[in-house]
Amino acid sequence: MGLEKRSVFVVSDRTGLTAEELARSLLTQFPLVHFVTTVLPFVDSDDKLKDVLRQINESSASDGSRPIVFFTFVNADYRKQIDQANALVIDVFSSFMGLLSRELNLVPSWQPGYSHGVTDPLRYNSRIDAVHFAMDCDDGVNPDAYDQADMILVGVSRSGKTPTCVYLAMHFGLYCANYPLTDDDFLDDGLPPVLQPYRDRLFGLTIDSRRLHEIREKRRPGSAYAKLAQCQFEVRRAEGLYRHHGIATSDTSGISVEEIATTALQQSGIRRELLG
Amino acid sequence: MGLEKRSVFVVSDRTGLTAEELARSLLTQFPLVHFVTTVLPFVDSDDKLKDVLRQINESSASDGSRPIVFFTFVNADYRKQIDQANALVIDVFSSFMGLLSRELNLVPSWQPGYSHGVTDPLRYNSRIDAVHFAMDCDDGVNPDAYDQADMILVGVSRSGKTPTCVYLAMHFGLYCANYPLTDDDFLDDGLPPVLQPYRDRLFGLTIDSRRLHEIREKRRPGSAYAKLAQCQFEVRRAEGLYRHHGIATSDTSGISVEEIATTALQQSGIRRELLG
Repeated sequence: MGLEKRSVFVVSDRTGLTAEELARSLLTQFPLVHFVTTVLPFVDSDDKLKDVLRQINESSASDGSRPIVFFTFVNADYRKQIDQANALVIDVFSSFMGLLSRELNLVPSWQPGYSHGVTDPLRYNSRIDAVHFAMDCDDGVNPDAYDQADMILVGVSRSGKTPTCVYLAMHFGLYCANYPLTDDDFLDDGLPPVLQPYRDRLFGLTIDSRRLHEIREKRRPGSAYAKLAQCQFEVRRAEGLYRHHGIATSDTSGISVEEIATTALQQSGIRRELLG
Repeated sequence: MGLEKRSVFVVSDRTGLTAEELARSLLTQFPLVHFVTTVLPFVDSDDKLKDVLRQINESSASDGSRPIVFFTFVNADYRKQIDQANALVIDVFSSFMGLLSRELNLVPSWQPGYSHGVTDPLRYNSRIDAVHFAMDCDDGVNPDAYDQADMILVGVSRSGKTPTCVYLAMHFGLYCANYPLTDDDFLDDGLPPVLQPYRDRLFGLTIDSRRLHEIREKRRPGSAYAKLAQCQFEVRRAEGLYRHHGIATSDTSGISVEEIATTALQQSGIRRELLG
């Protein structure tokens, strides 16, 4: 039996990212429907809006069910026009904006681009610098820069350090380095010398050794590096190191980069601030 | 005159990222208020919820104005409890969920973690692989892997290639490499040899030369690399190259990584799919 198909449009005068995120969160709660989503960003002229309305209405006619439209527009006239589409039209901002406006006793500025644009150049630059820092300090490279790091992720190869570092940099502007634990670091219970001055900035990643084995097998099939026994050894020693030195940890098996990053941020006590 | 201060809480049984994004988008529309936001993720037990309610109510008592609370909970009982807080309480999912539920004639599954968790391991792994690809193919390294690339960003040093690549990988699972254009590439109007087989995957970044000069000055003060004349020369030649070879481009001056990435994706015609 096939899933019911439904067309979804996400329409915005800017990137559409906020509406897209929200739409995805909501739609995943209806697993019996196969949603086919089209994102239409930068709809910022009458002609573009007209074209969008045409696409939505055509899809409605050909699907035999009306599409679902999530939109964010700062232009009140555009909000009215899209509301006339032959679709379930969801205005992501307006209902909340009314609540907030009454609560704050202020009218919203309805300025475009405030959420995924550059509003504060200093903060924005620090986010870009953070991404470059994550690249420059990936995989144990450049330990001289560790004194600038907000956080240093440690873990065995392919435990999720790199994507987590990059996410923390991109979204929260965190200066995050990562250091791979290898056999050389397991000769005794001591922290690797380059990490010793920074014990309070370390966050340890761990992973189920079978899962690690699968990931490494995919990368280097049949290698000593990928062997289950090797993965078990490394994971056990890494976890021992974390325990021995009181390093906060997260098990990355089966959880996403967002979840790992959120956990690391929460446990580190660093103030969480979404940058854009 | 100081801005009015208002406490904001973002509360979730998962990462809180969707609610945080939406809250930020909405609140930036009220620039006259200084919002102090506390994000409380992973509130998934009665004790944690009790603690959250205590924090909100204490803040209400000490601020002299009620806080604004954005929340996402899959647990219906938690939704009811937080609604009783002494605050303007905004249930990010429920109102939309009702609309969608009626439209689809289905009840939402209210499953946790569907949006920023690992739902489809294959897609999730491809996103992680994409991030590693972006790291491995940063700054012209590893051109042998270009045949696996969905997109190759080109541009002069510090025009925004690296963060954009990483963003495209992290959010859209795109295999994105980046190649820096340097003086060696400007000896004639030809494409650099390593890029020639991939003309249709290239996307060019450009930037205002004064802005580039500022960025480079911050990085290497007083260097030949940072000189305005050098920046002007490189930008002019890069733009010439894009024109000559019909390469789509985006000017990154004053726009965010999200905006550059969205533009590149839109212009490339690659199907946009948010991965999580």
